[in-house]
Amino acid sequence: MTSPIPPDPTKAPGAPTTPVGARSEFAKAARAPTGAIAGSAFTPLQDLSGAITPSDLHFEVNHSGVPAIDPARHTLLVHGFVRRPLIFTLADLRRFPQVVRVCAIECAGNGSLAWAGGPFGKPTPGLTPQQVAGMTGNTEWTGVPLRALLAEAGLSSQAKWMLAEGGDSCLFARSIPIDKAMDDALIAWAQNGEALRPSQGYPLRLVLPGWEGSTNVKWLRRLELGAQPWMTRWETATYTDPLKDGTARQFSFVMDAKSIITTPAYPETIAPGWRQISGLAWSGRGKIARVEVSTDGGATWRDSELQGPVLSKAHARFTTMWRWDGSETILLSRATDETGYLQPTRAQLIQARGIGTLYHYNPIYGWRVMPNGRVFFHGET
Amino acid sequence: MTSPIPPDPTKAPGAPTTPVGARSEFAKAARAPTGAIAGSAFTPLQDLSGAITPSDLHFEVNHSGVPAIDPARHTLLVHGFVRRPLIFTLADLRRFPQVVRVCAIECAGNGSLAWAGGPFGKPTPGLTPQQVAGMTGNTEWTGVPLRALLAEAGLSSQAKWMLAEGGDSCLFARSIPIDKAMDDALIAWAQNGEALRPSQGYPLRLVLPGWEGSTNVKWLRRLELGAQPWMTRWETATYTDPLKDGTARQFSFVMDAKSIITTPAYPETIAPGWRQISGLAWSGRGKIARVEVSTDGGATWRDSELQGPVLSKAHARFTTMWRWDGSETILLSRATDETGYLQPTRAQLIQARGIGTLYHYNPIYGWRVMPNGRVFFHGET
Repeated sequence: MTSPIPPDPTKAPGAPTTPVGARSEFAKAARAPTGAIAGSAFTPLQDLSGAITPSDLHFEVNHSGVPAIDPARHTLLVHGFVRRPLIFTLADLRRFPQVVRVCAIECAGNGSLAWAGGPFGKPTPGLTPQQVAGMTGNTEWTGVPLRALLAEAGLSSQAKWMLAEGGDSCLFARSIPIDKAMDDALIAWAQNGEALRPSQGYPLRLVLPGWEGSTNVKWLRRLELGAQPWMTRWETATYTDPLKDGTARQFSFVMDAKSIITTPAYPETIAPGWRQISGLAWSGRGKIARVEVSTDGGATWRDSELQGPVLSKAHARFTTMWRWDGSETILLSRATDETGYLQPTRAQLIQARGIGTLYHYNPIYGWRVMPNGRVFFHGET
Repeated sequence: MTSPIPPDPTKAPGAPTTPVGARSEFAKAARAPTGAIAGSAFTPLQDLSGAITPSDLHFEVNHSGVPAIDPARHTLLVHGFVRRPLIFTLADLRRFPQVVRVCAIECAGNGSLAWAGGPFGKPTPGLTPQQVAGMTGNTEWTGVPLRALLAEAGLSSQAKWMLAEGGDSCLFARSIPIDKAMDDALIAWAQNGEALRPSQGYPLRLVLPGWEGSTNVKWLRRLELGAQPWMTRWETATYTDPLKDGTARQFSFVMDAKSIITTPAYPETIAPGWRQISGLAWSGRGKIARVEVSTDGGATWRDSELQGPVLSKAHARFTTMWRWDGSETILLSRATDETGYLQPTRAQLIQARGIGTLYHYNPIYGWRVMPNGRVFFHGET
């Protein structure tokens, strides 16, 4: 505690208002950063309610640290297979029609710490929702539809791919098919109402709803249009998925439907009686249609309630009531999206991609409730 | 600047990840707090995009400062006209079915600085959207429907009103009709995904969607059910609206539809050519149905676009393209909600309530664009 709490707060003077409202010292949710330059920080899912992720708690993965950028000197170059190469300042971008959209961004590697027996070894019962699935966040983005900028530059009919390059010191870059660029891609400058935070790409970020996090290029400074992918380091050495036949899956952009119970979960201890089971579900293909919950290790399933509005390619909060009788059991959730895609079991994932796969983990996750009320990560089911 | 920005950020090492992602030093939106104990801090509307308000920038009005509360010692008492008086701990409340809802909270006094010629004098052209209408914010709340707690306590049929009391040192309290308590009232513990901030009522707040801010009692500690209103200081000496006949309007809970253009606005300077006009609209009665914009001082009006999803009793972001030809003009907006209610003119408001009214100001606001591109508050129209 940084300050003493009065025995009776109604008998003590209150604090004055402040320019920015700080968190309570009793509720300081935080990420757990790793790595000085190439590093990550996971969203503390077990500390969150609702569907919106606070911007400063939204996960990040950086390949070369967070650059310090002066917005007055930052521009976005659009060139290559366009009739009229253009450079946009931030003020230029704000002249275009803008759109606002809530959507999730999830790292392709989300779930790696929980992928039992694969390249990361055996997960421990002491994994939190943050560690199991915290490389995802759900926020409101404001920006310009990318298609408006490409129309301004005069997109060539030969343009089939687009390179998106960031302004960090590794010049992180991904190749994006033109259909996605012309569909729902956004050049975003605001997150949850305010300017992007540097760790989220200040001053500009490419947002590709439903696509793996790394394609949502931060500190965006250059878009090049071309006929084929660039085969950057980040789509050859990384962000490709080894398959069981020894080949690898490349450009596996869309994030499959996933869900995770965020309470009860490790490190909670629960008491018998009625309580809420609550978690998050999302799909890169559209809206979540249904989240089923099992309180008996998968023997039976029932539909949970989805807190509206359920938005496309965004986190949906699911909740269901449960009366715990004090006996040991396993809690599971599985999501179905509006395309009919059902979150797979671990066995189905291994059948499709092998145990050594490195990205796009979305097996059904379980939490084991012990008779003493302690809850542990049960792994993939 | 707190740190030097490298001439080329791509040639400098990036910063490591951090537990909480800080704001850019170039984009530090903030509120402007007033008053040490009884004080307020307004949302910086001109710095925000989209519809969500960051929790730490959400306006606050405090009548006796922000109390420091230990959640382990905080309880909610429900008593009075109930069959079974109950005390809920925070853990107890989390056992109930929970709901998630995005909605606006607006102070009844929002607009007082712009109410020309009334008790606050004549507003200056140098008012920002924050000063004109910044006593509103729009966030996602998670909590328990109040009706579930009242059912648990066994509401008496004689209960017609409810007193909601906060845990600050003035024991701020408002009387609420039972119909609202049983309708969409929430006992909220989370805002935008995380625990309430102390300035927003940590650890518990009553949320009454669409009702004047002061009824959304912060630091909630007691609910008493009774047959009639309590006539507290805050519904007799304050939060009543003087009318032109010398009487006053009391218990005027519902916030009427309002809109304000947040860009262009003071203190911006704009350049000729195409640009976006953008602002916020909301209504305590339901969804915003339409926001019209005039770029010629009210001679003609056209519909703006509403960024979806448009939610009931929540901020809606409206946008429209405008080509400024460099001549002096006045920009206006007016909202219509789903009940058909149209935001009034200043003359209509004065006709209904007189010039001396103190709350519920929602006249049409204007921004004057000068030939040199400077934009000033034009006042109410």
